[in-house]
Amino acid sequence: MRKNRKGSKHIVDLRAYLNEKRAMVDAALEACLAKPEGLAAEVTKAMRYSLFAGGKRLRPILCIAGAEAVGGSGPDTLPVACALELIHTYSLIHDDLPTMDNDDLRRGKPTSHKVFGEATALLAGDGLLTEAFYLMASPEITERTAPQTLLKVIRHIAGAAGYRGMVGGQMVDIQWEGKSVGLPVVEFIHTRKTGALITAAVTSGALMAGGTTSQLRALNAYGENIGLAFQISDDILDIEGDARTLGKATGADQKVGKITYPSVLGLSKSKELQYSLIEAAIGALNGLDERAAPLREIARFIIERKK
Amino acid sequence: MRKNRKGSKHIVDLRAYLNEKRAMVDAALEACLAKPEGLAAEVTKAMRYSLFAGGKRLRPILCIAGAEAVGGSGPDTLPVACALELIHTYSLIHDDLPTMDNDDLRRGKPTSHKVFGEATALLAGDGLLTEAFYLMASPEITERTAPQTLLKVIRHIAGAAGYRGMVGGQMVDIQWEGKSVGLPVVEFIHTRKTGALITAAVTSGALMAGGTTSQLRALNAYGENIGLAFQISDDILDIEGDARTLGKATGADQKVGKITYPSVLGLSKSKELQYSLIEAAIGALNGLDERAAPLREIARFIIERKK
Repeated sequence: MRKNRKGSKHIVDLRAYLNEKRAMVDAALEACLAKPEGLAAEVTKAMRYSLFAGGKRLRPILCIAGAEAVGGSGPDTLPVACALELIHTYSLIHDDLPTMDNDDLRRGKPTSHKVFGEATALLAGDGLLTEAFYLMASPEITERTAPQTLLKVIRHIAGAAGYRGMVGGQMVDIQWEGKSVGLPVVEFIHTRKTGALITAAVTSGALMAGGTTSQLRALNAYGENIGLAFQISDDILDIEGDARTLGKATGADQKVGKITYPSVLGLSKSKELQYSLIEAAIGALNGLDERAAPLREIARFIIERKK
Repeated sequence: MRKNRKGSKHIVDLRAYLNEKRAMVDAALEACLAKPEGLAAEVTKAMRYSLFAGGKRLRPILCIAGAEAVGGSGPDTLPVACALELIHTYSLIHDDLPTMDNDDLRRGKPTSHKVFGEATALLAGDGLLTEAFYLMASPEITERTAPQTLLKVIRHIAGAAGYRGMVGGQMVDIQWEGKSVGLPVVEFIHTRKTGALITAAVTSGALMAGGTTSQLRALNAYGENIGLAFQISDDILDIEGDARTLGKATGADQKVGKITYPSVLGLSKSKELQYSLIEAAIGALNGLDERAAPLREIARFIIERKK
């Protein structure tokens, strides 16, 4: 068995863990979204195109891992885990649109509007966002999760996705693009654009699994820290990453004057911040037992990832 | 007291009824959506701009009237009623975008993207759609509505708004614009684009009020019929209406080759169909008592409306 940095035994083989959970999420996603048929087939085709374009399934896996970290069942959270991926995918489609970030490539594939046209891409995003809530209100979930808890989860995720979270972050991101900003603005953007849904993913899993208030608080802090670290690693990969591995051109952020941590803090300070965020994330889990091991490994993985 | 067509007494003064309910909905909408503040203020500003641009509040009123028709409390449905208006408003903002219908004017005012730009309009739509679900999962509602029922309502409305409903209808509408189509296509578009959310509005109200299966079936038929009649009256107003009263240019549908009932059936046959739909809608309510009177009046109003 491998040893981790502190010399103690690795409790999880992260690669195997991620592969297993990703396969579980992929199968659930495959089952939850209708095959394109009928007159409006084009929109479900576009929804599926982006949903199955090679996503890491980080948010669903965090939801599952969040439930397991407090002793709950991962698979029981699957409809919500899938909903998180639908919301994430919608946000990518809309962010890539010409009127927003105008990106042609995502994960090595042409973006939705490049394949289906702008109108269909817009509708595919709308369809995915709406379907997320359809999914979270499935009657099957309430066999395992109390309806009252599920409503809390829906509200929690809607809060993270809407103008208080992702939508607000994207708004500020666009407004300030190409302008000189300080740390508060970049923090505002990234905690909302990336951090909010990542945090909601891990805490939603724990909520469904009946986590205690102190467990939820710990997982919230964990989520906020890895969410920010994840975005910084995205920003760093845009500078130092390999375009082929990433599946998109690098250097794009600087070219369009995107607001990133490296652009505000510089590369070296951004890396320092990233390490301290990961440390804080792992520290936040101190009160949790070995069932939180996958979350600790995921935190470390964020710094090491290449795509 | 005025007499209606069949000579029986008018049970409701529809104008007063609509005014009272609209004021109730407006106050609730005002309270539910945050005042624009902070870095992302622009997006809530845009959300509020379209939400308070003079909508008739037809869907919220149908939700309230649906609850009252089966003996429930209208005000108890307000968070869901407001959510319906948020979803309706989001759909208008996205439909008006240049990549979709490219409309500059809506209810006599410049459309969202004309005022705020395309990116903000897109985000305002996303924000409104997401906020609708945030609102429907409010903890306050569960004091009056069982969480299990509320989940049913959320799923019902998400189903009507997503690719099975509005999004699917808009998809087909765009794909077939300018092409020659038959009745099945125009029916497909209008039952989904307009009918689905209108039907969901009235049945959601009844669901929350504990309506019986047969009441829900009746209200569903009512909703489907008025939904289609409402869209036909929209199409007819675009031909025969007064641009000043409507707050937008008329004749636009024909100019861009929009798929409408008049374009497929002709004006006279469309009017006949509209009357028979309204008759069917009122007929569907036969098993309901005088508490469904506002719904009957609303059905009649759809034909008479000038905007």
